[in-house]
Formats: sequence, C-alpha cells, structure tokens
Amino acid sequence: MMKISQRALSLTTSPIRRLGPYAVEAEKAGKKIYHLNIGQPDIETPPQFMEAIRSFNKKTVAYGPSQGDMHLIHQIQKYYKEWGMEYSEKNIFITSGGSEALELAALTLCDPGDEILVFEPFYANYNSFAKIAGAHVRAVPTSAETGYRLPDQETVEKYITNKTRLILLTNPGNPTGVVYNKKEMDMIAAVVKKHGLALIADEVYREFVYDGAYTSFGTYDDLADNLIIVDSVSKRYSACGARIGCLLCKNDDFTTQINKFCQARLCVPTVEQVGAAALYDTPKSYLEAVNQEYKKRRDTIAAGLAAIPGVISSDPKGAFYVMVKLPVDDAEKFAIWLLKDFDENGETVMIAPGNGFYAEPGKGVDEARLAYVLNCDDLKKAIHLLGEGLKAYPGRKI
Amino acid sequence: MMKISQRALSLTTSPIRRLGPYAVEAEKAGKKIYHLNIGQPDIETPPQFMEAIRSFNKKTVAYGPSQGDMHLIHQIQKYYKEWGMEYSEKNIFITSGGSEALELAALTLCDPGDEILVFEPFYANYNSFAKIAGAHVRAVPTSAETGYRLPDQETVEKYITNKTRLILLTNPGNPTGVVYNKKEMDMIAAVVKKHGLALIADEVYREFVYDGAYTSFGTYDDLADNLIIVDSVSKRYSACGARIGCLLCKNDDFTTQINKFCQARLCVPTVEQVGAAALYDTPKSYLEAVNQEYKKRRDTIAAGLAAIPGVISSDPKGAFYVMVKLPVDDAEKFAIWLLKDFDENGETVMIAPGNGFYAEPGKGVDEARLAYVLNCDDLKKAIHLLGEGLKAYPGRKI
Repeated sequence: MMKISQRALSLTTSPIRRLGPYAVEAEKAGKKIYHLNIGQPDIETPPQFMEAIRSFNKKTVAYGPSQGDMHLIHQIQKYYKEWGMEYSEKNIFITSGGSEALELAALTLCDPGDEILVFEPFYANYNSFAKIAGAHVRAVPTSAETGYRLPDQETVEKYITNKTRLILLTNPGNPTGVVYNKKEMDMIAAVVKKHGLALIADEVYREFVYDGAYTSFGTYDDLADNLIIVDSVSKRYSACGARIGCLLCKNDDFTTQINKFCQARLCVPTVEQVGAAALYDTPKSYLEAVNQEYKKRRDTIAAGLAAIPGVISSDPKGAFYVMVKLPVDDAEKFAIWLLKDFDENGETVMIAPGNGFYAEPGKGVDEARLAYVLNCDDLKKAIHLLGEGLKAYPGRKI
Repeated sequence: MMKISQRALSLTTSPIRRLGPYAVEAEKAGKKIYHLNIGQPDIETPPQFMEAIRSFNKKTVAYGPSQGDMHLIHQIQKYYKEWGMEYSEKNIFITSGGSEALELAALTLCDPGDEILVFEPFYANYNSFAKIAGAHVRAVPTSAETGYRLPDQETVEKYITNKTRLILLTNPGNPTGVVYNKKEMDMIAAVVKKHGLALIADEVYREFVYDGAYTSFGTYDDLADNLIIVDSVSKRYSACGARIGCLLCKNDDFTTQINKFCQARLCVPTVEQVGAAALYDTPKSYLEAVNQEYKKRRDTIAAGLAAIPGVISSDPKGAFYVMVKLPVDDAEKFAIWLLKDFDENGETVMIAPGNGFYAEPGKGVDEARLAYVLNCDDLKKAIHLLGEGLKAYPGRKI
C-alpha cells in the first residue's frame, strides 16, 4: 500500500467548494440555489477572447516559452504602464491563473518551517500554497467588529519571527472586500523594508474598487526589490476558466529562480494565452461598466445585510465579497442546513463558511463569505432567503 | 532584501531549454539550426482540436470542476477501455499537462527527506518535481553499453531504503527510447508490491512504439492499489501547447488526497479541455500514420548514428528520443560549440546535453539526448551535421 504524505493529509478541502455535494443533492431534489459561495462572476467574457482564439491558425499547437507568450507579456506591460507602473519584459511571468503565481512564489521564497505572515481572514487557498511549500501561515487577526481593518505597526511586528519570509495579502481583499488606505499600505511597506521581507500583493481585484481611487503596491518605488505582484485576467475580464495569470517582480534574484520552476512545468496553455492577450484590447468602457454594475450590487447587498438583525458585516469597498458575522452557532452547519433543510417556495441560498478563511481551526466559526456575483434582483432574493433562513435556523444564537 | 529558498537554489535549469540563448545568438548570426534538443513534434495537431474550440459558445469562460471537465473524463475513460483498462469517473483527474500530474503525485506521496526511485538516465524534470516535494531522487544506473536496459530485481532492491515511497518511470522511455519488456515490467511490479511502494508510470508515449505491441502497467490487475498512470494529449495528438494531461489511479486513499491539491489550483483551462476532448474523436488512422512516420524517422536516425564512428546509442524502440554516448570530453561544451563555433554551409544542429538526465553532477557528461521530431530529410542533414561536428570538435576524445 502506498503511503500518503503528511503534507497532503494536512491540506483542507476548499470552504468554497466542499459543500458542493450538498448543493448537488438539493438541486436533485428540485431546489433552486442562489450561489453566494463562489467568486464566479455571471458577467460575460469580452468577445475579443473567443474572436482571437477562433483566428488562431497555427497548424501545430506547440509548446510556448516557459516565461509566457511575448505578445501577452507586452499587453500586460502596456496595461501596467497605464496604471503608472513600469515593468520590463523580463519582470513578467505568465502563470496558470493567479493560483500558480502564488504557489511558485511561495516555493521560491519558503523552505519547510518558514513563516508567511497574513491578515486574517484571508483567501482560503493561501493555506494550501503555504503547505505545499512546507511553510506555516502566521495570521495577524482582524475582526468583524473593527471592519477587518489592519492593526498598527507595533501589533503587526509582534507576529514577525526570524522565520518570517514574506507578507502575503489581497488588496482589494478576499474575503473581506476591504481596500487598504494609505496609512495601512505605508505601514505594510515599512514593515517589509524594516524586516527584509518579500511582499506578495495579490491585486487581481484592482479594477473592482467602488469608492475612490486605488493604489497598487507597484507604485511604491522603494519596494521594487521586495515586491511580487500577482495578477490575473480571471476576475478583471470574467475569464476565470482561461486560467491565465501573471507574476511581476523587479528583483532579478527572484526572477532568476522562479524561471526554473516555470521551466519545470514547460509552459502555460498556448491557445488561452492568445485569448488573454486580446482581452487587454477590450475598451476601457467594458471595465467601467462592470465596475458600475458591481457597485450597484455592493450597494444592494450592503443594504440587504444591514436590514438583517444580528448580522455584522465588513465594509465592502472593493472586490466582490463581503465577510459577515452571523448570529448562529456554526456557519458551516448553517450553510449545510440552508441546502438540506431550508427553502422558501423551493428556493435557498449557498454561502461559504468563514472558518476556511482562517489559519487555525476554531476561528471564524460564526462567519461566512458572500460573493455578490449575481444581478441585483437575484441578490435581493438571495439576501432575503439568508434573512429568512436565519430566522428559522434552530442553531440561532440571539 | 528577500531571501530565496534552498529548494529554489537547488533546482537546475532544463538541459532541454537552457542552451536556448546560444541558439538565439546563432540564429541572429544567420545560422540555420536543426533542433534535436526538444521533443516538440512538427506533426500537425488534428483539426478536431481547433474545430471544437471554435464552436465553444458559452458567454462566460467560467471555472470548471477541479477534477476536470466531465466530457473530457468520459473521452479518456473510453480511450482506456479500448486499451483494455477500466477506469471509473472518480479515478481520472485532468491536469495541466503530464507535468502537473507528476508534481501533484509527488506532493501527495512524498514528505521532505523521502526518496523517489528512478532509472537513470530519466526525464530531466523529474528532478524538479522531486525537489518541489522535498524528496530525493535515488537513481538506479543503466548504461549506454547495455542499451539502458534495467538490471535484475536484486540490484534494484539495493537502492530501496525505508524512505523510498515510489518508483517513477517513463515507458516508452524519455530520454532513452527504451520500451520495457515483460521481464522488466514483472520485476518492477514485484518490487512495488513487495516493498509497498507507489508506482508512477508516465505513459505519455504509449502510442509511439515501433516494434511489436505495447503493454501498459494499467493492465497489471494486482497493481491497482499501487499504480498511478500519468498521461497527456501533448505527444499523442501533437498538442503540447494545450497543456492537458491526466492522472489515473484506482486507490481511493490517493485520489481523496490529490483532489485537495486540485481544489487549491481551482481548475485547468476550460477552452483547451474542450479541444482536448475532441482530440479523442480523432480517427485511429491519424495515430497509425503518425506512428508510421516516426518509425521511418527512428530507422533514419538509427542508421545515421550507426554510421558515425565512436557513437554508442540506445536501441530506440519507442517515444521519439535516442540517448547517445559521444566521443567528446563534455557533451554540454560540444553542444555549445555546435551552436557558437561550428557550421557547414551556414547550418548546424542542436542537441540536449545528457548530464541533465541524471540525478547527480558528473554523470552522463559525454551523453546527449536526440529528439527525432524532424522529417527524414531534415533528420539526415541533422545527423550528417552531428557527424561533421564530431570530426571537427577540438574536444574529441578518440
């Protein structure tokens, strides 16, 4: 019999995907489910994607360069220039979604026993990428009651040890929807510089900011040697299934090393890169319209949540998530109960239990992440169902 | 300043790709290069691939299931049935090429310090996948002089320790082109069962066997609990750039665990999976014609190599590689010299240095891998250039 690695046994299933079987059962039983559990936008992918792919006419679908297709790299370079950031060709690596960028960065920076500093709650799969690299996630807590804002520098530094290699964050935030303000970003930059850390800034939701301007860590010139930006077309252009992301870094020591991991997996898909390159030609008006649509959805879900007694919610300023504290014994039990035992006129709602967005078991037990990726009418219904579910749930706390 | 992991520093660059810059320089200087260094077939991808992709008409390119697209899984199931192997849906996982299947299997089976048994020379990137998992590659040597055949069971068992978790092999072989006979396969099966190991059989070249029938390890019923098959459309349908592979395993303990790694990276590309599924509808005549073409190429390169004094070659029965021992001081120096300092009428040849296909430095120094992925006329020229290069090379040994 084969032996399974401790690494594999320590991985948890995705809080976003693991309740899938209950959803399948509920749908088999004829229930309609409003999905707030997964960040799969309903927005249409710009037609440029498939148009470019349909025009692909090479006779052989051959390996591409390990670094990525140069045309796509140039498109990304141009996009960053418009945001006021200069990256040369050699600073950009195409990856299989933001996910691979995160995994390769962790593998390049962390040996077994090293530590990755995150702000809790955080994107669930960061736990997996850390474990793949043998690293530990050390989490600085933030709370629903303070809107999941960052603590001050002194508090953050208490979590830094001689094993800390990097700070990993999402901005705008998944699962909280928080957008860091200048004070928070300056504090992070100061900590990174002072302690000689790497900073992995997962900025895939950059275009999804609803109140005021957005600042990328890429505009902090003195972070050039420390910063790794993770990006993706998945959310920006509603092309999650293309699995085309990228990693940007100006530190040559780092890029020399990550290039070896890229060579090991040969290359990312040729045809999807052709489509992704075309996405960067999508007119600005597309991104503006999408932003406006999500802003309306944000307003809709925020208003809906505010009207449910006992719910404490993050102040969602960006991305398309909101983290909520619910008046329940256990949000995972509640999520399963919503699928198995609840409906209103044959309809129910699916949410992602919050515990998976924390590093250690026992935290976030009464929290949940809601993805507002439905149109406003469906969102209203979904939040109504959540409220009705909370009234009827036997494990209600208050 | 960020700190780089020991893991990253220990990775080597690909012997297949690292001489690329010399090739770029040679081409800039106007040289024509015959590429025997990389296994990128010149064969056309079946039109079914792009036809299916052009018909893809979903409005949103959405995330797919982590396990893979069910239609593609069914197509693979059908293909295996034709080869006499029964795999149920839950036994098949779609991966980003065979590469990801190999990496995920290593991560699922090996903790830091564990050992992976291979037969040397072996596919260079096995070193990288092992290092990503923190495992050590322990190599059982085979040699050019004995045609890279496997030693007997007693010899193989000398390399097994209490840290050995799995045997990893390619059959037909990359870089040797060796196809294991029944005696060799029975021996491996016996070792795997006796020592309770996993067996990862990389069978991506299954259709490329030129003398007699091919037996898959998947037909060994008593290996069901130990066997992991790695497969891919890359070589079979000349669609390397699609990056669609798969992993097949009947051991539920293993598949439960690997599913968690699949969830962490969300899914493989949606559009390329649509194309890959259609590839399995390619008429058998395509695979037969490709096999015949490679058989001619195999005969061409074997005859050409036999005519060069001092060259010892493997007996290539499958895949599209041949491993050669060359009468030179250092095959890497020779490969660079061919690109920088040699030409005949403005033409030269590029080969992959053999040292990268060994676990430890200092081995395979006078060997090289040749990929016969060119048409017969070009192959004849390439081998002629190799012979002329060997005559003129200052570091010639004999």
